Amino acid sequence: MRGAVLYAPGHIRVEDRPDPAIIEPTDAIIRLTATCICGSDLWPYRGIEKVDGPTPIGHEYVGVVEEVGPEVRAIRPGQFVVGSFFASDNTCEICRSGYQSGCVNRVPMNPIGTQAQFARIPLADGTLVATPGMPDADLVPSLLAASDVLGTGWFGAVAAAAGPGKTVAVVGDGAVGLCAVLAAKQLGAERIIAMSRHAPRQELARHFGATDIVTERGDDGVNVIKDLTNGLGAHSVVEAVGTQESMMQAIRSTRPGGHVGYVGVAHDVALPGDELFFSLVHLHGGPAPVRQYLPQLIDLISERKIDPGKVFDLTLPLDQAAEGYQAMDERRAIKVLLQP
Amino acid sequence: MRGAVLYAPGHIRVEDRPDPAIIEPTDAIIRLTATCICGSDLWPYRGIEKVDGPTPIGHEYVGVVEEVGPEVRAIRPGQFVVGSFFASDNTCEICRSGYQSGCVNRVPMNPIGTQAQFARIPLADGTLVATPGMPDADLVPSLLAASDVLGTGWFGAVAAAAGPGKTVAVVGDGAVGLCAVLAAKQLGAERIIAMSRHAPRQELARHFGATDIVTERGDDGVNVIKDLTNGLGAHSVVEAVGTQESMMQAIRSTRPGGHVGYVGVAHDVALPGDELFFSLVHLHGGPAPVRQYLPQLIDLISERKIDPGKVFDLTLPLDQAAEGYQAMDERRAIKVLLQP
Repeated sequence: MRGAVLYAPGHIRVEDRPDPAIIEPTDAIIRLTATCICGSDLWPYRGIEKVDGPTPIGHEYVGVVEEVGPEVRAIRPGQFVVGSFFASDNTCEICRSGYQSGCVNRVPMNPIGTQAQFARIPLADGTLVATPGMPDADLVPSLLAASDVLGTGWFGAVAAAAGPGKTVAVVGDGAVGLCAVLAAKQLGAERIIAMSRHAPRQELARHFGATDIVTERGDDGVNVIKDLTNGLGAHSVVEAVGTQESMMQAIRSTRPGGHVGYVGVAHDVALPGDELFFSLVHLHGGPAPVRQYLPQLIDLISERKIDPGKVFDLTLPLDQAAEGYQAMDERRAIKVLLQP
Repeated sequence: MRGAVLYAPGHIRVEDRPDPAIIEPTDAIIRLTATCICGSDLWPYRGIEKVDGPTPIGHEYVGVVEEVGPEVRAIRPGQFVVGSFFASDNTCEICRSGYQSGCVNRVPMNPIGTQAQFARIPLADGTLVATPGMPDADLVPSLLAASDVLGTGWFGAVAAAAGPGKTVAVVGDGAVGLCAVLAAKQLGAERIIAMSRHAPRQELARHFGATDIVTERGDDGVNVIKDLTNGLGAHSVVEAVGTQESMMQAIRSTRPGGHVGYVGVAHDVALPGDELFFSLVHLHGGPAPVRQYLPQLIDLISERKIDPGKVFDLTLPLDQAAEGYQAMDERRAIKVLLQP
C-alpha cells in the first residue's frame, strides 16, 4: 500500500509500505476513505519534536472495516468507522470515567501512521465507532474532522466549561481552535470570541458561531478580552496552540473562578506557580478523550447540524502529502485532507 | 492597643499600635476574641517573602463588633463575627460566582494585621458573617479555624472534587492539610490518604477522618499512592504546601481525569507544560474564597459536627507571639492560637 513517512524535518515522502495485518486478536484493519494532516504533525515536521529516523505518520482516519481479529465482537467488516489518535479499550476504569485518552491500555496511532491506504487499529471494539450506515460522500470530511480536530476542540470547550450564559474566548485559529468555536456554540455559549488575524479563518470562525473577532495577541489580546468583559475576563477560554505565550494569554484572559481548557500540545511551556495561584482559574486539558464524544459528534454530523469538515480548505491525493505539509506549515491551508 | 509587627525575618515584636478607626463608611471595628499564626505568615518570617520594613501582621480573626461605619447595614455592634483574609463586597459578579477571594474590590487583611486586640474590617457587610448568638468559649478555636485554615482546606477539597466514592490524598500535614482531611470526610469521600511523617499530625489526621497514612514523600510518595489505587492514582489530591516538590507530587498522584486542588501559596513553582498536558488532570486552587463557605462552616461548628479547632495545639497570650512563630517555624506546634 501507499503511505506517508516522515524522514526528517521538512521531509515527507509517500512510498510503498507493507500492507498492515492483524497482530493482536483485538485489532481491525480498515481501508481509509480519507485521512488528513494535523497541526501536531507539524511539530516533528518543523523539527521542534525530535525525528528518530523514518517513521510512518498520521493519526486521523475514517474508513471501511476490511478485517477484524478473532476477539473483536462489536465491529464488523463493511462498517464505516471513525476512531481517534489513541486506541483505547473503553472498558478500564479511566475509560469509563470518560478519559479514553488516558486508557491504561492505550496505544498511540502515530507510529502506526494513518496517512496511508490501510491501517491497523488496535483495540477495535473500544476505539472505533460505526456510523449509522454508509455516509454520503459530502459528510466524509466532517466525520474525518471528528477523528481529532473536532473532538479535540470539543474537549477544549468542555474543559473550559463553555455553556449557556458564558463568554468563551478561543486562543488559536487553527482547525482545533475553529472547532472549539463550533463546540462552544453547540454547548450554548452566549458570546464566543475568536482570536484571529487571518481573514479566511475569521470568516470560518463566524460561520461556526463566533460573535466577536479579536486580532490582538499576547497581553494586548488579554486587554481586549478584559475590555469586552467589564474588566473581568472571559468565563471560559480555550487554548489551542501550545506555546508559553498562548497559555499565558489564555490564563490571563480568564476571570477568577473561570475555566481554561487547553488542548494545544504543550511545547517548552512552564507555568509560573504564583501567577497561576492568584489567577484562581480552573485549568484542564491534555490529549482529548475524543472517543467519549464520537457517538454524539457522529449524530450531529449525520443529522447535518454541524459541518466541521469546512476546516479542510485543501484536498490532495495522498501521494501529494508533502505539498499538504508545506501548505499547512506556511499557513496557506488551515487543514489538508488527503485522499488515499 | 497591642499588636504584632514583623520587623525583619525572624523578628516579630508585639508593641503598642494605634487603635483602629473607621476610615471607609463600609468599615467595621472588631475587638478580637482570638487570633492566630498562619503557615503563610512563615514565608515572610523565614525571609522567603521580602519584608519591607516593619509591618503589622496576621489575617485570621474572630471577635465582637465594636463599631460600624454609616453604610454598614447587616452587621451590628455586639455581634460575634468571623471573617476571612480578603475583605470582599460579596456583591460583585466574581463574588456572586463564589470567588470572593477574587472580588473586584477585595482588600487583603494582611497589612491591616489581625494579630492584635482590635482590627478594622473593610467591606464589613460583605466580609463578616455573624454567628447565631454568642458562641460557647470552647467553640472559639473552631470558629477561628474557619477564618482561614478550615475554609482553605475546604476549598482545597472542593477544588479537588472530593466526594462520595472518591479516594482523596492530601499532600501537606500542616493545619490546612489536616483541615482538608476533615473537609474530604464531610464531603463524603470514601478513602482519605494523609501524607505525614509526624505522629501527632497523623493522629489528628485520623481523628479528622483519614483512613490511610503515607509517610513517603516526592516520587516515593507518588508510588505508594499508585500502589493504593490499582496503579491509577487518587481521584482527588489536595496540595497544601506550595513548593515545586509538593505540586509535582500532587499532580503525579492524581489519575487521568482526576482533580488537584492546590491551596499552598506557591513559591518558586514552575509547572512543566508537557507533563501537565499528558497528566490529564484538572488543576484548580489559589487563595480560598473562604467567605463562600463561612455560613456552612459556622453551622457545622455551632452544631458541634466538626471540631477543626483541634489544629491549635499551642495557645499563648498575644504578647508572646514571637514564641508562637518560633514554635511553628520549628514545627513544634501545628498552629498557634493567640489570646489578645
